Amino acid sequence: MLKQDDYKQHISEKFNTELEAIKNHLLEMGGKVEQQLSEAVEALVARDTGEAESIVNRDHEVNQMELAIDDECATILARRQPAASDLRLVVAVMKVNTDIERIGDEAAKIARQAIRLAEENVSPTNYVEIRHIGSHVGAMLRKSLDAFARLDLELAVEVVKEDSKVDKEYDSAMRSLVTFMMEDPRDIGAILNEMWALRSLERIGDHAANIAEHIVYLVRGQDVRHRSLEDFIEQVGDI
Amino acid sequence: MLKQDDYKQHISEKFNTELEAIKNHLLEMGGKVEQQLSEAVEALVARDTGEAESIVNRDHEVNQMELAIDDECATILARRQPAASDLRLVVAVMKVNTDIERIGDEAAKIARQAIRLAEENVSPTNYVEIRHIGSHVGAMLRKSLDAFARLDLELAVEVVKEDSKVDKEYDSAMRSLVTFMMEDPRDIGAILNEMWALRSLERIGDHAANIAEHIVYLVRGQDVRHRSLEDFIEQVGDI
Repeated sequence: MLKQDDYKQHISEKFNTELEAIKNHLLEMGGKVEQQLSEAVEALVARDTGEAESIVNRDHEVNQMELAIDDECATILARRQPAASDLRLVVAVMKVNTDIERIGDEAAKIARQAIRLAEENVSPTNYVEIRHIGSHVGAMLRKSLDAFARLDLELAVEVVKEDSKVDKEYDSAMRSLVTFMMEDPRDIGAILNEMWALRSLERIGDHAANIAEHIVYLVRGQDVRHRSLEDFIEQVGDI
Repeated sequence: MLKQDDYKQHISEKFNTELEAIKNHLLEMGGKVEQQLSEAVEALVARDTGEAESIVNRDHEVNQMELAIDDECATILARRQPAASDLRLVVAVMKVNTDIERIGDEAAKIARQAIRLAEENVSPTNYVEIRHIGSHVGAMLRKSLDAFARLDLELAVEVVKEDSKVDKEYDSAMRSLVTFMMEDPRDIGAILNEMWALRSLERIGDHAANIAEHIVYLVRGQDVRHRSLEDFIEQVGDI
C-alpha cells in the first residue's frame, strides 16, 4: 500500500505544480500587458512613434501567451479532472486570460493612436486626461493582478470601487475634449485620436474590474459579476 | 451485468441531454442578443427613446443568462469530467458565452446613444452608415450562431471574412463623419454619438468573428484565434 500512496502523492504533487504553473503563466502575461499599457501611454504623451510601433509589433506575443494558457487549462481539465477549488482556479484562469488579452489589444490600440497623434500638430490638451486616467487604470490593473496572486479579496473590492471613479473621470475628460473640439474645429482629428485612446483606457478599467470579480468567484465560489457596486461590497463584505 | 449497463447508458444519456441543454441555452441567449441589437439600431434610426430605454432595461436578462450558462458548464466539468469533443464543447460554450454577453453590452450602449441622439436636432447624416453596418453585423451574428448550432465550418469561415469587410466599412464611415463634423461644428455632439454607436457595431463584428473561431476549435480541436484571414482560411480550407 505504501507504494500506491507514494504514487498518489506523486500525482497530487505534479497536479499542484501544474496548477501553480498556469497561475504563474497568467501572472507573467499580466505583467507583460501592464508594461505594454504603461509604455503605450508614455509613447503617446512623448510622441514617440518608434516605441509605439514596437508595442503594436509585440502584441502577438501576448496573443500567443493567451493560446498557450487556454491550452494548458484544457489539458488539465482533460487529464486531472479537477474538482472544487482546483476546478474554480482553472475556470477563473480561463476567464481572466480573456480579459488580460483584451487589455493587451487595447494597449496596442492606444499605441496606434499614438502613431496617428504624432503625425498631427501639437495637441491643445497636452494629454492631461490621458496621463491621469492612464496612470489610474495602470494602478487598477496592477492591483487586480496582485489580488489574483495573493487571492486578496480586500484588494479585489478596491479595484471594483476604483472602476466607478475611472468612469466618472472618463466622462468628465470626454466633455472637456468636446469643448476643445468646438473651440477649434481644426483640432477635431487630433482630439478624436485622444478620445479613442481614452476609450481604450476606460475599457482597460472595465477588464481590471472583471479580473477582480473572477477573484471573488475563485475564493468564495460566488459569481458576483453584473452586480451593482453596493451589492458587490455587501457580498464580499465580511472579509 | 445488464443492470449496470442500463445504469451506464442512463448516465450517458443524461450527460448528452446536459450537453445539448448548454448548447441550447447558449443559442437562446444568442437569439435574444441578436434581437436586442436589431432593436437598438432600429430605435436609434427611428429616434424611439421608449424602445431604447426598454433595451437598456432588459440588458440584465442577458447578464443573468451568462451567469447561468457558466454555472451549468462548471457543474458539468465537476460532475461529468468530460473528455475530448465533449470537453471542447464545454470550453467553447464558456468562451462564446463571454462574447455573446459583450455583444449584449454593446447593444445596450447603442441604445444609450439612441437616447442621446433623440435629444439632439436631426442628424445631418441620416444614419446611412449605422443602418448599413448595423444590418451587416446583424447578419454576421446570425451566421455565427447558425454555424455554432450546425457546427458548420464553411459558415464560420464566411463570418471571419465578413469581419474584414465590416472593418473597411467602419473606417470609411468614420472618415465621412469627421468631414461632417468639420463642415458644421454645431453638429459635433450628435455626430460623436453616432461615432460611439458605430464603434459598438464594429466591436460586435469582432465578437461574431471570435464566435466563429471558437467553432473551428470545437469542430477541429485547433485554436485558430489570432491568425491572419489567409492563415485562417488555409487552416480550415479542406472543408
